[in-house]
Amino acid sequence: MERQRKEERDWWLRKVYMDYNATTPLEPEVIQAMTEAMREAWGNPSSPYPAAVTFVPVSKVNGQVEVEDILAAVRPATCLVTIMLANNETGVIMPISDISQRIKALNQKRAASRLPVILLHTDAAQALGKRRVDVEDLGVDFLTIVGHKFYGPRIGALYVRGLGELTPLYPMLFGGGQERNFRPGTENTPMIAGLGKAAELVTRNCEAYEAHMRDVRDYLEERLAAEFDKQRIHLNSQFPGTERLPNTCNFSIRGPQLQGRAVLAQCRTLLASVGAACHSDHVDRPSPVLLSCGIPFDVARNALRLSVGRSTTRAEVDLVVQDLKQAVARLEGQA
Amino acid sequence: MERQRKEERDWWLRKVYMDYNATTPLEPEVIQAMTEAMREAWGNPSSPYPAAVTFVPVSKVNGQVEVEDILAAVRPATCLVTIMLANNETGVIMPISDISQRIKALNQKRAASRLPVILLHTDAAQALGKRRVDVEDLGVDFLTIVGHKFYGPRIGALYVRGLGELTPLYPMLFGGGQERNFRPGTENTPMIAGLGKAAELVTRNCEAYEAHMRDVRDYLEERLAAEFDKQRIHLNSQFPGTERLPNTCNFSIRGPQLQGRAVLAQCRTLLASVGAACHSDHVDRPSPVLLSCGIPFDVARNALRLSVGRSTTRAEVDLVVQDLKQAVARLEGQA
Ligand SMILES: Cc1ncc(COP(=O)(O)O)c(C=O)c1O
Ligand SMILES: Cc1ncc(COP(=O)(O)O)c(C=O)c1O
Repeated sequence: MERQRKEERDWWLRKVYMDYNATTPLEPEVIQAMTEAMREAWGNPSSPYPAAVTFVPVSKVNGQVEVEDILAAVRPATCLVTIMLANNETGVIMPISDISQRIKALNQKRAASRLPVILLHTDAAQALGKRRVDVEDLGVDFLTIVGHKFYGPRIGALYVRGLGELTPLYPMLFGGGQERNFRPGTENTPMIAGLGKAAELVTRNCEAYEAHMRDVRDYLEERLAAEFDKQRIHLNSQFPGTERLPNTCNFSIRGPQLQGRAVLAQCRTLLASVGAACHSDHVDRPSPVLLSCGIPFDVARNALRLSVGRSTTRAEVDLVVQDLKQAVARLEGQA
Repeated sequence: MERQRKEERDWWLRKVYMDYNATTPLEPEVIQAMTEAMREAWGNPSSPYPAAVTFVPVSKVNGQVEVEDILAAVRPATCLVTIMLANNETGVIMPISDISQRIKALNQKRAASRLPVILLHTDAAQALGKRRVDVEDLGVDFLTIVGHKFYGPRIGALYVRGLGELTPLYPMLFGGGQERNFRPGTENTPMIAGLGKAAELVTRNCEAYEAHMRDVRDYLEERLAAEFDKQRIHLNSQFPGTERLPNTCNFSIRGPQLQGRAVLAQCRTLLASVGAACHSDHVDRPSPVLLSCGIPFDVARNALRLSVGRSTTRAEVDLVVQDLKQAVARLEGQA
């Protein structure tokens, strides 16, 4: 690698570039502005579809989509099933491998009746970097990758099994023929390099990241139960027997004045959200995701989603739990 | 600015972020990979449309689109005219201000017959950073901005006059509601910061950049005329009375063995292209842009596009001209 890099550098040193209409280098001040923005301003503010779509609800018992429900929703013209791998609000892991196995069996039957093949897509935005993700185990045809969820840059990628051969893919935009005509525009090589490096770190360290996040998240749930009356804390994403992301804690503190937004507004230290940033329209409706998981209206209205990262510490958890206690006390007029 | 930044930093220091499902910071190694890629690998490798489109050719006399030709192509249902501000191969500047004035007058007449307003779009990718660009002087409704052509990052922006009020804009992609629903996806704040900084540099220094590039480009054309027999060099983008970009030199060295690609392949120092990178399919057809500008087939086939940048020096020009001389000698069997 290093030698190849040196050779490339030496090659460039012997050349004179005179193709500034094709692309220009970046001014150092530009790189600095971006580097600063990457270091400092990474805190977040995302999807409607045309075509005939059947939405399949999750189970109110376990927060997961049921394999049988997916199969039952398949129609003769169905060509794509898309399910997120881990829910962004609850962290619940969906049974993608089971679904892919059932769809594969179904596809064999459908072939006999000349029905279209059903392809399987999963959005792994929330799962990547938090647990092992393997397209072979999952058996999916498409998998969505989002850099800024796993300490990478703000670009994404789509895994496609046997691109154009086993699995069709149609461009959404048209242009200069880059990326084999699948997506036009000069390739964003710096961001691609960053995404690659972030993926490399995940491949190398995923178990360590996962263990750390699980430790801190579990500690958070322990502390919440200890500091509040245990009855007052409702863990919205703990369903018996259901796997969930190691970093996500969706909980509610019961009480008539303790709506999620009100609690967050009273917090002096904690920065978190009540659910998905992309659907935060600042209206105090409870999260539809939680309601569909069977969380009662009054509990869902109070939900907070705390999600920890690679560098979150137990000390930070202690601060946050104290902050929450004081916020609740203020809202209940005791402070 | 500095104070605001410090205050923001202090604010962050007092907080605990626990919203890692919304977005994560970038790992230092990721930033490093991107910074390296931005410094080293910026050298370039872009567009078809549905809807009824009339293509208007440029004039073979001056390489420009003629105002009258545009007006003559307007049909009752016409709603958009789109013209690049500066051609990427020849550097010829298109008469956008004149066209916008004529369209404005036409729009007043059309309003009386209840015909749709004609909006004007210009692609300023090649002009920005090389000459003054002012949406008011141009009188356009839309203007395309491309960061990596003016020492900025690989993202673009679209200027829209009176977005949604004076000028309609329809999203091409749908999603989480960011950017007032015009474009979904978590905003790429680091790249936006970089684009802003690159734009700031251009606003501040455009005259200096332009003067430097014009000096070096003119020197290049002088040296070419001096080193080759003057009759052998054909400047493909010099049309009497037509303005062109200060950095672009599209020329051909006449001779049966001197096709553009052949010459470039023989060069040992020069890195340039025969035309647009997005249409380089490695076939030895002459550039359709040059042919439509009235450049004869044999001349167009030999075309090279050299485009200089902010840091190109006269010494580099000397090296390149010598390199070209030797390449030509080798191709003609004299070396
Ligand atoms: C006229 C013109 N418009 C737009 C672009 C930008 O293309 P891309 O989207 O590949 O960066 C270019 C450069 O390649 C260009 O020359
Ligand atoms: C499930 C899921 N998919 C995809 C994304 C990525 O969205 P964006 O395109 O805004 O980065 C997110 C995060 O916001 C998410 O939670």
